Amino acid sequence: MPKEKITIIGLGVIGGSYAIALKKLGYTVYGADCDEDTVRKAKERGIADDAATCADAFIPDSDIVVIALYPKQVESELKRIAPLLKKGAVITDVAGIKSHFTQRIESILPDGTDFVFAHPMAGREKKGIDYADDNVFKGANFIITPSERNKKSSLDTVERLAREMGFKNVMRLTPEEHDKIISFVSQLPHAIAVALVNSDDRKFDTPRFVGDSYRDLTRIANINEKLWSELFLGNKQNLLCSIREFEKYLDVIKKALENDDKQALEEEFVRATKRRTEFNKEL
Amino acid sequence: MPKEKITIIGLGVIGGSYAIALKKLGYTVYGADCDEDTVRKAKERGIADDAATCADAFIPDSDIVVIALYPKQVESELKRIAPLLKKGAVITDVAGIKSHFTQRIESILPDGTDFVFAHPMAGREKKGIDYADDNVFKGANFIITPSERNKKSSLDTVERLAREMGFKNVMRLTPEEHDKIISFVSQLPHAIAVALVNSDDRKFDTPRFVGDSYRDLTRIANINEKLWSELFLGNKQNLLCSIREFEKYLDVIKKALENDDKQALEEEFVRATKRRTEFNKEL
Repeated sequence: MPKEKITIIGLGVIGGSYAIALKKLGYTVYGADCDEDTVRKAKERGIADDAATCADAFIPDSDIVVIALYPKQVESELKRIAPLLKKGAVITDVAGIKSHFTQRIESILPDGTDFVFAHPMAGREKKGIDYADDNVFKGANFIITPSERNKKSSLDTVERLAREMGFKNVMRLTPEEHDKIISFVSQLPHAIAVALVNSDDRKFDTPRFVGDSYRDLTRIANINEKLWSELFLGNKQNLLCSIREFEKYLDVIKKALENDDKQALEEEFVRATKRRTEFNKEL
Repeated sequence: MPKEKITIIGLGVIGGSYAIALKKLGYTVYGADCDEDTVRKAKERGIADDAATCADAFIPDSDIVVIALYPKQVESELKRIAPLLKKGAVITDVAGIKSHFTQRIESILPDGTDFVFAHPMAGREKKGIDYADDNVFKGANFIITPSERNKKSSLDTVERLAREMGFKNVMRLTPEEHDKIISFVSQLPHAIAVALVNSDDRKFDTPRFVGDSYRDLTRIANINEKLWSELFLGNKQNLLCSIREFEKYLDVIKKALENDDKQALEEEFVRATKRRTEFNKEL
């Protein structure tokens, strides 16, 4: 069977990295991005076999379409390209939240096409094609949230691409499970990092004094505000839940401090060390 | 001038790393640790020129004494060795909090000796001589909190040792400034990491889903409970202040979520990104 032809819509840091990875693997890769400069770079650097500011010319010829746009743009872009999709085409996305649009996306999908919801868990602090790099996929997690409508063959196709691109763990979850987990393992850490950096009162010249711990905890405070405000608001109930749960445990530490309760502090530290060590084994 | 003879009391991860670094630099290094196994390892591995479970035999011959014990043990250890100290000896510590004991330490110091309060900002998640490694000092920060009693020559001696061991920035602060800054750049991140790991409700198999952000934010949740409960409680007012300030900014994010206020979220993200980028320039 000849290798599939793949169109990637959105050549930002994730879409661009998909293009680089898939082209290296021998697929025919078409790239589309509304930014002319990005299209020019994609062509110049050979990131895609062909590229344009509009995907329309590529869609009828594509077996797979990756919509690598911000969550809110996925639906409108799909509506636009729907009439052009090839029979049997598999469409997939890269959005970091799922529950909010799964049903709406499926309702506008033409017969004979299949949409596989996917979340490649590999981000960068920087945005844009200049930071596209397929190395970020190596060893990373990839979550698929199958729907009842999905054909097994489509799910397998997207899983195969993920593994070929270097993702290590490809997992299948419901959209609701995905969004709950993501609110804890990804969105909560970003909320914390942002709050930590912003709470610096600057009475002192803080940057001179930071060590590894502060650096580690605030690296992700360098954040794409347009994307992440969408991700946060599109998953607000889960994220609020995760923040409140986190605050409960911060309260335990505060109370222990207020009460000079060394034993309570030690218990929290021992529990945290034990849990973090389990992660180390796994990772 | 011949190189000074240095006794290091406490051959844990910091004291052991001091010993390794100073011995490489050509100093005569004596090591003391109450743990027999640690003493044996220090000798076997040539980490010190001589080592024993008690420092008494080394003190009268030492120009510099480093007390690399937990904060609460510094005072009692100093009391014990005070009568043995050589005239002109410089004593220094490595404790991560300063205000709580500066005056008490100075009140028990014999005439003709000088105590330079120092905080090498280089830690490890692991404890004990097995994890001693002078590489952790390379490029790290070193804070000295001078007192009125200190001679310039003593301060310069400790600063010189720090620079020779590889510390990059050697800064001088009052004990009060030190403790305020440390509560924000070091203790608050540890409190957050512990609370974050402990707030995992384990409804899902979290370790399978974590990415770089969660890993970065929780690395320091692997924490020495005896040492850190002492550091937290010995600086509780400052730490409580820092936690409350952090919570205010987490509240801003929560309120923005509750009110679907995309603009407020974006403003927080932009501010955080700008501040974090300043750190990058500095570091």
